Amino acid sequence: MGDLTITFLGTGTSQGVPVIACDCATCRSDDPRDQRTRASIYVETPECAFVVDTGPDFRTQCLRENVRRMDAVVFTHAHTDHVMGFDDLRPFFWHQRLLPVYASAETMDDLRRVFVFAFNGENRFPGYLHPEPHVVAEPFALGETELTPLPVPHGRTTVFGYLFTRRGEKLAAYISDCKAVPEPVIERIRGVRHLIVDALRHKPHPTHMNVEEALAVVAQVQAGQTWFTHLCHELAHAETEAALPPGVRIAFDGLRLEP
Amino acid sequence: MGDLTITFLGTGTSQGVPVIACDCATCRSDDPRDQRTRASIYVETPECAFVVDTGPDFRTQCLRENVRRMDAVVFTHAHTDHVMGFDDLRPFFWHQRLLPVYASAETMDDLRRVFVFAFNGENRFPGYLHPEPHVVAEPFALGETELTPLPVPHGRTTVFGYLFTRRGEKLAAYISDCKAVPEPVIERIRGVRHLIVDALRHKPHPTHMNVEEALAVVAQVQAGQTWFTHLCHELAHAETEAALPPGVRIAFDGLRLEP
Repeated sequence: MGDLTITFLGTGTSQGVPVIACDCATCRSDDPRDQRTRASIYVETPECAFVVDTGPDFRTQCLRENVRRMDAVVFTHAHTDHVMGFDDLRPFFWHQRLLPVYASAETMDDLRRVFVFAFNGENRFPGYLHPEPHVVAEPFALGETELTPLPVPHGRTTVFGYLFTRRGEKLAAYISDCKAVPEPVIERIRGVRHLIVDALRHKPHPTHMNVEEALAVVAQVQAGQTWFTHLCHELAHAETEAALPPGVRIAFDGLRLEP
Repeated sequence: MGDLTITFLGTGTSQGVPVIACDCATCRSDDPRDQRTRASIYVETPECAFVVDTGPDFRTQCLRENVRRMDAVVFTHAHTDHVMGFDDLRPFFWHQRLLPVYASAETMDDLRRVFVFAFNGENRFPGYLHPEPHVVAEPFALGETELTPLPVPHGRTTVFGYLFTRRGEKLAAYISDCKAVPEPVIERIRGVRHLIVDALRHKPHPTHMNVEEALAVVAQVQAGQTWFTHLCHELAHAETEAALPPGVRIAFDGLRLEP
């Protein structure tokens, strides 16, 4: 216990909450938990610290949480709400320090396309990023934490969630974007201490699970505690959480877990 | 007077101010004018409203300034600190409304590469962006405002500043990123009411003007008023402004001009 900490940098879907120019009750809510920047988690261990995804709010999130240590970045997929803050990793990697990047082959291809001047090495500007790409499909280690990629369907592609294991203990599973959690992934994460999973809204959505679909996954995984994330403005925090079964809660920006 | 308003959405350089994990005096300043998101201006006229650049802070900036109207986007260039918030234009362009995008040929190519799923029309997701590209090199109109592209050198490329003219009056020139302002551009903007120009820091920089270089441009342009922008954390607002000559000031996030 206590040697892996997860801080939710963001818990919002692509447009965040509030949505620009929206006057709905959630977007105008006074509850700070209804302010959601784009989904991302920051993971700290005694050996190293890393972030899962760097959306456009990454700088704002790091300032808010006073993040001072970063040793690697792990990506779930390359949709804009998960990668566009990549450049803001720079202050952590001055002085030609290599930036280890972990992602699927497809996601790495997208990162190479979008951030071409970082990945092709042509930008020799002092202090610019020097990514060290690690294409992953199987479990890999960051310090003493094992990360198991969890392939899940999201729109036209398969994206990754990740299971975090230390000393054989399944501490947390983070699956931010998915339309379903396939049976092999359910098997792999069953009994995890903390399940963090996509539950966009109540209404069905073509590429994200809604609350009903997420609750069906919860019943199968039997996690110690479940947290819904990647939330849109149709879900107000307090009201939505009050209607959830025991053991299921709504994550919020700044929430810290010590599984 | 009063029929063109410029709101500074951001006045910071690529890493913004504060810089992540920095404890310098400017980054820890209590002066709200020392909080700088990435450089961008929002321009309102009776006929239409548009933004120049959409950096990673674009959503945060729109929420801060309660921006509710957007009819087009104009780009200076495609460096990450100027484009990565492009996707956050979505709430302004729901319901298949076309998004007019104005940029140089080189910048448009970069936008097509980075935001391929918007520009290639493959993303048919309801509410996704439908850009209408306008490659520009010569003056063009947005409503009754004439925008004149101002080619200036920035690193390896030529990027655009813009001169805003209404009824023959040179109201403002915005040149956010440049190492110099060439003589033909000086001639074109001479006597403009408001000059908004790159002045990164005191120390020379390979791709941006420093304060000394910017002051030399100020002397040539003879604007009614000059505002320095694209500022890094080496320039604290109050102290820097106090040392500037009459007619030259430091811009800040949220500043509104009505030239």
